[in-house]
Amino acid sequence: MKAARRQPVDVTPVWIMRQAGRYLPEYMAVRSKVTFIDLCKRPELAAEVTLTAQSVLGVDAAILFADLLPMLEPMGANLEYAKGEGPIIHNPIREAADVARLRELNDVDSLGFVFDAVKLIRQQLPSNIPLLGFAGAPFTLASYLIEGGGSRHYVRTKSLMYNHPAEWRDLMEKLSRSLIKYLARQIESGCQAVQLFDSWAGCLSPVDYQTYALPYSKMILDAITPLAPVIHFVHGNNALLPLQRAAGGSVMGIDWRINLKDAWDIVGHDVAVQGNLDPVALMANIPTLKEMAEGVLKSVAGRPGHIFNLGHGVFPEVPPDHVKALVKIVHEFPVSN
Amino acid sequence: MKAARRQPVDVTPVWIMRQAGRYLPEYMAVRSKVTFIDLCKRPELAAEVTLTAQSVLGVDAAILFADLLPMLEPMGANLEYAKGEGPIIHNPIREAADVARLRELNDVDSLGFVFDAVKLIRQQLPSNIPLLGFAGAPFTLASYLIEGGGSRHYVRTKSLMYNHPAEWRDLMEKLSRSLIKYLARQIESGCQAVQLFDSWAGCLSPVDYQTYALPYSKMILDAITPLAPVIHFVHGNNALLPLQRAAGGSVMGIDWRINLKDAWDIVGHDVAVQGNLDPVALMANIPTLKEMAEGVLKSVAGRPGHIFNLGHGVFPEVPPDHVKALVKIVHEFPVSN
Repeated sequence: MKAARRQPVDVTPVWIMRQAGRYLPEYMAVRSKVTFIDLCKRPELAAEVTLTAQSVLGVDAAILFADLLPMLEPMGANLEYAKGEGPIIHNPIREAADVARLRELNDVDSLGFVFDAVKLIRQQLPSNIPLLGFAGAPFTLASYLIEGGGSRHYVRTKSLMYNHPAEWRDLMEKLSRSLIKYLARQIESGCQAVQLFDSWAGCLSPVDYQTYALPYSKMILDAITPLAPVIHFVHGNNALLPLQRAAGGSVMGIDWRINLKDAWDIVGHDVAVQGNLDPVALMANIPTLKEMAEGVLKSVAGRPGHIFNLGHGVFPEVPPDHVKALVKIVHEFPVSN
Repeated sequence: MKAARRQPVDVTPVWIMRQAGRYLPEYMAVRSKVTFIDLCKRPELAAEVTLTAQSVLGVDAAILFADLLPMLEPMGANLEYAKGEGPIIHNPIREAADVARLRELNDVDSLGFVFDAVKLIRQQLPSNIPLLGFAGAPFTLASYLIEGGGSRHYVRTKSLMYNHPAEWRDLMEKLSRSLIKYLARQIESGCQAVQLFDSWAGCLSPVDYQTYALPYSKMILDAITPLAPVIHFVHGNNALLPLQRAAGGSVMGIDWRINLKDAWDIVGHDVAVQGNLDPVALMANIPTLKEMAEGVLKSVAGRPGHIFNLGHGVFPEVPPDHVKALVKIVHEFPVSN
């Protein structure tokens, strides 16, 4: 929390995106008994995997176990997590007219399982460890709704955006107003900070991001930042960094494709940064991993406001011992701020 | 060719990556009769689709119809283009020891079908239209060899790279020496310029690109640039632009994720640029497409050395009329240099 406010710290804080994930045997033990969506919707299980990951790894924050997409169900999306296929939305937005049938999230209590998990975790988490909530940014959620799942080139999403700007605006505004309610309630329920994940906005050119995504992310960041620190993470396009900053947030999440120092110079030193080790570095032998992690740490040493993380989520293939070693490497690195 | 040398031109030249592709009915008519690999290996058919695309679209260059991967067959790769699945290499490099069994391309004549196609095309192509050859950059080819096909996160590729640097160097040097022979022979056979495609290097951080990819791309660019102009295209990470330039090439290929003007400022005005409309812009209605294309053209107007192109290959879903309209839009844009 100090780093998010750019205050001096004794050790660089670290957490790992997707730290409660398939690479972790303690997670798999719980996950093997239920489906993914059940794990999301059963607060006691979501709390268990959240808490276990934090304590097993020794990281400086817990991140709520949840997914970006269940919040779309009360809005009308027919969501399924098919085995080995990732999420599928069976009633994607395919015509501009389909936008009208998406319902704004009025009854945020329909997502009570998320807020119950937050409360349970907060009760059991050591008081010096912050709990992070999160949600997908509107562009990322719109892509899922339109493509009906993951996508490589976002052909349908961009087609709607270019050819039906009024419906696009309607869709993005509905998502943004819904996200504000969802994130505010996460904070109210006990999260100390939240992350807005724009996993897919990196497919946009700067001009398109500015036109079709920034205004909606900004609406959310303007509303939520006064309530708690917000980490604003945009993945996949570092030419968007000045616009990512302009959209807002207390901490800029940086992917691994750019030197962290360069990224911080671009977004400005009056904001904190989070990142940015290549997640695949966790496949390297420990000396190489150490060299790479210390490369990130050294590049920004001496300036308060760095939260160490990967530049994207951790992979199932990663040895858990390497994640634990990484946390130790970060904590042992001498801070001079 | 003038633009590649940064000489003034009357109209901005334009060609389209993957212009002889599945979106084009004239291509599909030929393709429907043979497999993809047959089309690559039958010079009279490869020539036909190359020439047809150029004349149907009215673009300012023909690009050899070929694929990045067949050159790996005489090196020992067991390559298949499975229906609807993209390329598969059935004997991927999975252990560091597998690198030893990859053979350097000594007998470049084993790829005679490529050079025969070049000769046939050059005979029939109008003399004022340059023919472009191409090859994959070593990092991109190494990724295919190691992953056995396309990849999302390059976990195997980076694991080899981080954990077996000596074998990685061996692999990259074999590929680079082979690529020099392959590209030199394309030029000797009648290509006026060539493009080095680094489709996947964008997954690398700047430090990793500099260590594991740049030296090998540079080896090729140093050898080939004296023979003919080389377009050096790196896709997916604009933080690599200064290193892409450092690796070499006469023209920097720029993807759509950055403003072209900003990219040119970064790589330097003493080199030409190619790009960089979002390929999905071709799904937009014509007025929006025009606005987007002219946005690219205007941003760099007045400085010789711009070759218009998409920021990546054209998609099968694109209406051919939109590609033709784009060529017209570029040709009608007033040049002032």
